[in-house]
Amino acid sequence: MPRAPSQNDFNRETVLPKNETPHTMSQSKEHHSGTVTMESVGRLAGVSQVTVSRALNDPSKVSAKTLQRIKDAIELTGYVPNMVAGALASKRSHLIVALIPSITNFAYSEFIKHFIQVMRGHGYHVLTAETGLSMEEEESVLATMLSRRPDGIMMTGINHSAKCKRMLLGSGIPVVEIWDMTESPIDTCVGFSHAKSGEETAKFAHKKGYRNALAISAADERALRRKDAFCETFRKLGNNPVKEICLDSPASLELGRKSLAQAIDEGFKNGVVMCSSDLLAHGVIIEAQTRNLRIPEDIAVIGFGNQNFAAFTVPSLTSLHVDRAYLGSQAATALMARIDKKPLQKNCIDIGFEIVERDSA
Amino acid sequence: MPRAPSQNDFNRETVLPKNETPHTMSQSKEHHSGTVTMESVGRLAGVSQVTVSRALNDPSKVSAKTLQRIKDAIELTGYVPNMVAGALASKRSHLIVALIPSITNFAYSEFIKHFIQVMRGHGYHVLTAETGLSMEEEESVLATMLSRRPDGIMMTGINHSAKCKRMLLGSGIPVVEIWDMTESPIDTCVGFSHAKSGEETAKFAHKKGYRNALAISAADERALRRKDAFCETFRKLGNNPVKEICLDSPASLELGRKSLAQAIDEGFKNGVVMCSSDLLAHGVIIEAQTRNLRIPEDIAVIGFGNQNFAAFTVPSLTSLHVDRAYLGSQAATALMARIDKKPLQKNCIDIGFEIVERDSA
Repeated sequence: MPRAPSQNDFNRETVLPKNETPHTMSQSKEHHSGTVTMESVGRLAGVSQVTVSRALNDPSKVSAKTLQRIKDAIELTGYVPNMVAGALASKRSHLIVALIPSITNFAYSEFIKHFIQVMRGHGYHVLTAETGLSMEEEESVLATMLSRRPDGIMMTGINHSAKCKRMLLGSGIPVVEIWDMTESPIDTCVGFSHAKSGEETAKFAHKKGYRNALAISAADERALRRKDAFCETFRKLGNNPVKEICLDSPASLELGRKSLAQAIDEGFKNGVVMCSSDLLAHGVIIEAQTRNLRIPEDIAVIGFGNQNFAAFTVPSLTSLHVDRAYLGSQAATALMARIDKKPLQKNCIDIGFEIVERDSA
Repeated sequence: MPRAPSQNDFNRETVLPKNETPHTMSQSKEHHSGTVTMESVGRLAGVSQVTVSRALNDPSKVSAKTLQRIKDAIELTGYVPNMVAGALASKRSHLIVALIPSITNFAYSEFIKHFIQVMRGHGYHVLTAETGLSMEEEESVLATMLSRRPDGIMMTGINHSAKCKRMLLGSGIPVVEIWDMTESPIDTCVGFSHAKSGEETAKFAHKKGYRNALAISAADERALRRKDAFCETFRKLGNNPVKEICLDSPASLELGRKSLAQAIDEGFKNGVVMCSSDLLAHGVIIEAQTRNLRIPEDIAVIGFGNQNFAAFTVPSLTSLHVDRAYLGSQAATALMARIDKKPLQKNCIDIGFEIVERDSA
């Protein structure tokens, strides 16, 4: 006999009539395809309703052939699942929140692109939000995003405010921190060591014979760590002078040009220029050329990021390469393992980096 | 007397006990801050529960002072609203779906950035998904995204498959199409005319005295419309020859260089080069320089997009400017008006464009 509804019923979704799913119910009210249910999709595809549900929740768990049959049935019936109701029913929102400093910066949008692709393959959507480079903004964005009850969270970097860490730990939601490396991640971590990359860049420059350096860095905390490691290592290697320019705005071609101009005005000449991004490095190349300086004879240039234009500047740009596509997909895979409570081989995955040598240094 | 639950109850959320909200219920089960309710936040802030709810649903409807008091109370209590339950209760998901061709292309990520900012101010989150440049992919992405029951949809462009249009019209969800212009939008539209921008570029080039042209275009349907209008107008203006190169990959510095090289190999000289993006135009400049061609005397170059590097290439780049920040915020404002069922002055907003003249043409 039916009972009166209670708070508990709401949470457990026991109010659902048998053979009906939350998907079809909301749908029947709001969508044309009114009477199409998961069951009818299944019948048409020759699979059970459970298989349809599985295909919608995690396409990777269903064979390609079955998935295609289900897709065809969905196509024919015009079935639209309701993931909002589904989320309450299954306690999974199938939503991932990803926080990146800037959505217009190629460095981040490229790994996000691959992160999203892998997540979509598992039936998850990714809500991407921008945090700027401030811990306070990250904290505030995270707080709003938590209201979506994500199943997983991707955070850029390893430096977060104490409150941010408390929220993450308190939520119990799986977290992957990416684009940096730490022995003590909040949960799991995929990235590389910024300090090490700065060190290796300095060793490379020293080995190439440069004995005088300029380091230009954007105001990003990770870029500053690369720069500091570069300067320290370069100085140590031969008691060599390093001039430093720290910008207070995001990297741009304009700032690359202006920084080299400023350094030259202040007496810098004949040396290597280490830049925190390829965009800055390209600006340095352009400015050097307007001053009729030879590259790399008078001014050598090293970028960071190995963006797709680096091989096509003149001269082509030597740059530090991090495989962002791999980073994004590895991070998604690690996070999915955490969500599915599968064992991870290790908590921290170091994907490394390499210096791609071209004509500019 | 309590009735037995029915399908209708589930949809109307009448299963909720009085004085309780879906927010507090799910929360008490899943989060630390267990006993914190919207009511306790309101009590602390000295406002009603309704005001707290309003502040969470649309911050712009609450005074800045009240909003701050509520934020402080949320901060103190650690309250986390549950938007999943909230979405089912209020029939609003406070989620917007935005489809763009590429999340790594600055042209799109810049207007999305501003679109998201305005939406966040209204308490909405934006799910951004990539469609590539294919109608089929757009259709498939839209279908998955509809399962989130968004309150509004942002589509890039005005060309969608018949099925895609059917899904949009059938859903009854407000839609804003952006980055293009049509007299018959699905719902509402904010953009500019690509054909007109191509025409104006041709008139500009002709007026500057160029009598020979090369048009390099990425495979994007809108870029091809600009290119076609450019070629037609340029030819008409003085029976002038136009050479066309259509790429089958996304625009890049590399393809700009290669396209100019190819055109020169095939006999192109002394004329203006119209490029479908600043990135291609920058590649053309670099290639011209490696061949010791003078710009604009031998080869003049016109870009599209007026990206932030355009003023800092050497020579600086003449480019067609579209105010992407304004585009993104106008689109968000128009969509919010549709969601709130407020009257719109007009269905189509043409934000226009302008040619920014610099040294390259």
